Amino acid sequence: MSHIAITELLKGTVAVDSQVTVKGWIRTRRDSKAGISFLAVHDGSCFNPIQAVVPNSLNNYDEVTNLTAGCSVSVTGKLVESQGQGQAFEIQADTVEVIGLVENPDTYPMAAKRHSIEFLREHAHLRPRTNVIGAVTRVRNCLSQAIHRFFHERGYMWISTPIITASDCEGAGEMFRVSTLDMQNLPLTDKGDIDYAEDFFGKEAFLTVSGQLNGETYASAMSKIYTFGPTFRAENSNTSRHLAEFWMVEPEVAFADLEDIASLAEDMLKYVFKAVLDERRDDMEFFAQRIEKTAISRLEEFVEKDFAQVDYTDAITILENCGKKFEFPVEWGVDLQSEHERYLAEEHFKAPVVIKNYPRDIKAFYMRQNEDGKTVAAMDVVAPGIGEIIGGSQREERLDVLDARLEEMGLHKEDYSWYRDLRKYGTVPHSGFGLGFERLVAYVTGMGNVRDVIAFPRTKGNANY
Amino acid sequence: MSHIAITELLKGTVAVDSQVTVKGWIRTRRDSKAGISFLAVHDGSCFNPIQAVVPNSLNNYDEVTNLTAGCSVSVTGKLVESQGQGQAFEIQADTVEVIGLVENPDTYPMAAKRHSIEFLREHAHLRPRTNVIGAVTRVRNCLSQAIHRFFHERGYMWISTPIITASDCEGAGEMFRVSTLDMQNLPLTDKGDIDYAEDFFGKEAFLTVSGQLNGETYASAMSKIYTFGPTFRAENSNTSRHLAEFWMVEPEVAFADLEDIASLAEDMLKYVFKAVLDERRDDMEFFAQRIEKTAISRLEEFVEKDFAQVDYTDAITILENCGKKFEFPVEWGVDLQSEHERYLAEEHFKAPVVIKNYPRDIKAFYMRQNEDGKTVAAMDVVAPGIGEIIGGSQREERLDVLDARLEEMGLHKEDYSWYRDLRKYGTVPHSGFGLGFERLVAYVTGMGNVRDVIAFPRTKGNANY
Repeated sequence: MSHIAITELLKGTVAVDSQVTVKGWIRTRRDSKAGISFLAVHDGSCFNPIQAVVPNSLNNYDEVTNLTAGCSVSVTGKLVESQGQGQAFEIQADTVEVIGLVENPDTYPMAAKRHSIEFLREHAHLRPRTNVIGAVTRVRNCLSQAIHRFFHERGYMWISTPIITASDCEGAGEMFRVSTLDMQNLPLTDKGDIDYAEDFFGKEAFLTVSGQLNGETYASAMSKIYTFGPTFRAENSNTSRHLAEFWMVEPEVAFADLEDIASLAEDMLKYVFKAVLDERRDDMEFFAQRIEKTAISRLEEFVEKDFAQVDYTDAITILENCGKKFEFPVEWGVDLQSEHERYLAEEHFKAPVVIKNYPRDIKAFYMRQNEDGKTVAAMDVVAPGIGEIIGGSQREERLDVLDARLEEMGLHKEDYSWYRDLRKYGTVPHSGFGLGFERLVAYVTGMGNVRDVIAFPRTKGNANY
Repeated sequence: MSHIAITELLKGTVAVDSQVTVKGWIRTRRDSKAGISFLAVHDGSCFNPIQAVVPNSLNNYDEVTNLTAGCSVSVTGKLVESQGQGQAFEIQADTVEVIGLVENPDTYPMAAKRHSIEFLREHAHLRPRTNVIGAVTRVRNCLSQAIHRFFHERGYMWISTPIITASDCEGAGEMFRVSTLDMQNLPLTDKGDIDYAEDFFGKEAFLTVSGQLNGETYASAMSKIYTFGPTFRAENSNTSRHLAEFWMVEPEVAFADLEDIASLAEDMLKYVFKAVLDERRDDMEFFAQRIEKTAISRLEEFVEKDFAQVDYTDAITILENCGKKFEFPVEWGVDLQSEHERYLAEEHFKAPVVIKNYPRDIKAFYMRQNEDGKTVAAMDVVAPGIGEIIGGSQREERLDVLDARLEEMGLHKEDYSWYRDLRKYGTVPHSGFGLGFERLVAYVTGMGNVRDVIAFPRTKGNANY
């Protein structure tokens, strides 16, 4: 390919007066009375298009003056310093090859005007052509690359935990069934139940809700692992924070306690936010201008501030004594609501805060029991402007304590045999956390709805494209 | 965490005579008559364990001499140059803290002896503790990191194409259904059919078989994208090359033709193989010794050699005239079988070979029609020792040609409306390929079965863990 990405030209990595070719799509066209056309050509490689200055001496100048938003072109010419303001370089075009036109420009859904975010969502296959979704796509990519880099540099192994699971560990609530049975003609057992022995996997199978338990098996051998893959919830939650299909990052670390994993969460978030500030300044300036005024400043603050740390029990005392009226009343034993978390982060600590050691009765069976007999070594990272962003815990590594907890909660030991094996054979203290990737992207970009930070969102009633 | 990864010690990044702590699992223990025990401690960070030399002067020396394979320990002591052969450094232990024992060492499934690969597969939660699966895990991680790095360095955006799809484009053959309907009590329409309007997504939904078509929408805006995510086939294929759930890498490139994408495939494979040779020499030496003699040499050759290129039509002529008897007879129009591909790569070209321009009747509707009216711009990369490793094509960007092909193949235009939109609005020549990630890992490691290169394989009748 002989053309060059527009980001390279705008960054100044190519010498002025070089002959260059760019390929992309028209954003706007402006014709001067003097017989010159200005084309803004975009190729997705950065936020800005490059301006191509096209003289009417070109053979196909008539064709050029018919170009509309979305048409694809190849422009060849000399790279020069721009006379106008706004950008440093432009192209004096020698040739403009029209590659693809737009059928009916008047009805082209992505015509050059401001569209509502809901309208864009209904055109998910075309919306990456817009400023806003293009910027989201680049920032999302930047974050995902930074996550892989962060863990890789620290010796973590990426593990692909299974998407389809027949494990009884996960609990079937709000899970999607995966099946190849003929729905019109279901096989039945003698008792008249569905005979899942006839199904593809020989038993009931579902889409995973978390890679954690599988991840623990690999942490118990490789020491430091992480997952980064899709997870699923069949929740009928029509909110701006829920998707039926979303990506999770789940590190799991052997020989790590709750403090270690809280530090890891802090280091990781700061690392990936710094990557965005360093690498995607162009897109972040757009978000700060159009979407969320503090998009850049709040990331800068996040990176600079030490996280606060507070025990759940102390957090409850703070909330009880703060004089603020909450919709959900606070007392020891309740789960913290978003309003409580945000008060702690935004008003009390004025910083991201790690809340630790939650009541065991509101937490999962696998979290490590504390000495007090009432709490478990769980933690949430709560940040100003978003609330909970990470949830994690130290895992119960003591077989007898785990077994007692399973029994207390009415869970069956037999269903957890492979998970219990990790405690039978060279058990180690270990900890991990989960990060919902779309919530992270929504936080960084200031986009109000997770449906706008994943390419093709899946929600109740919607699996289009 | 105050301990250090064993790979750092064995690489020599820590000064001799430093006081260090390592945490890991016992591989072997040997006691000398002189009252010294030698512990091989492994933490998954590299192929080799480190040796800890434990004198009988330790308070808990009795405990140390009871350690068995798989027990977890923390060892603190002085890093010294090793007297023995095999490795450069060892630890003179001051303290050995026993963290977790192995219940019934005699029946511990991962006791220190050679296990069959089938036995390991039945203990997928413990098998990463073995030499072979540990090495596979590190090489798999190295390959996946290298894939992300390769594309990121070249300006490609990682896109998470959807896992759940209700799109009619993919064709429902061999797909898994995703549903939340109550199987015991299915809703029916007036006509007595299953009423999928009642299902979670409001229509039939399946697990994706490829991210390509979705990827094309983003390539038509961002220019260069790739996917790296799970894909699914409900095939009843009980072979060493098939999984029901596997990971695919699918770059899609605007303004790229078949030659461009063939070059991209060559560059990518060489880049990731070079990463393995540079970064995982320890594991590759194990594979060369125990699994596949040529594991290292064939990668080295692959990296050095230029790929051969041949048209399908010429490949057929070569095969017809080679004097070799094939199980599947060859003539123009047939799809190439593994035996044909391997003959071309291993015996004729003695190099990886790109086979191009296949008969259109054996290829998918979206591949670009060539001028000859008989072939399409498709390509496969075929390598010695494995056969097909990559399949790709230039996509049909001309709406009229695409529509004619859909009609010829009995497909309905209406089902492809969003895909056709990409051709209506600023269409561009574009190309992409697909790489099955597990087949890549199997090739690199020499492992004979893809079930042994993914953590928890899913196949017909098996979705355990």
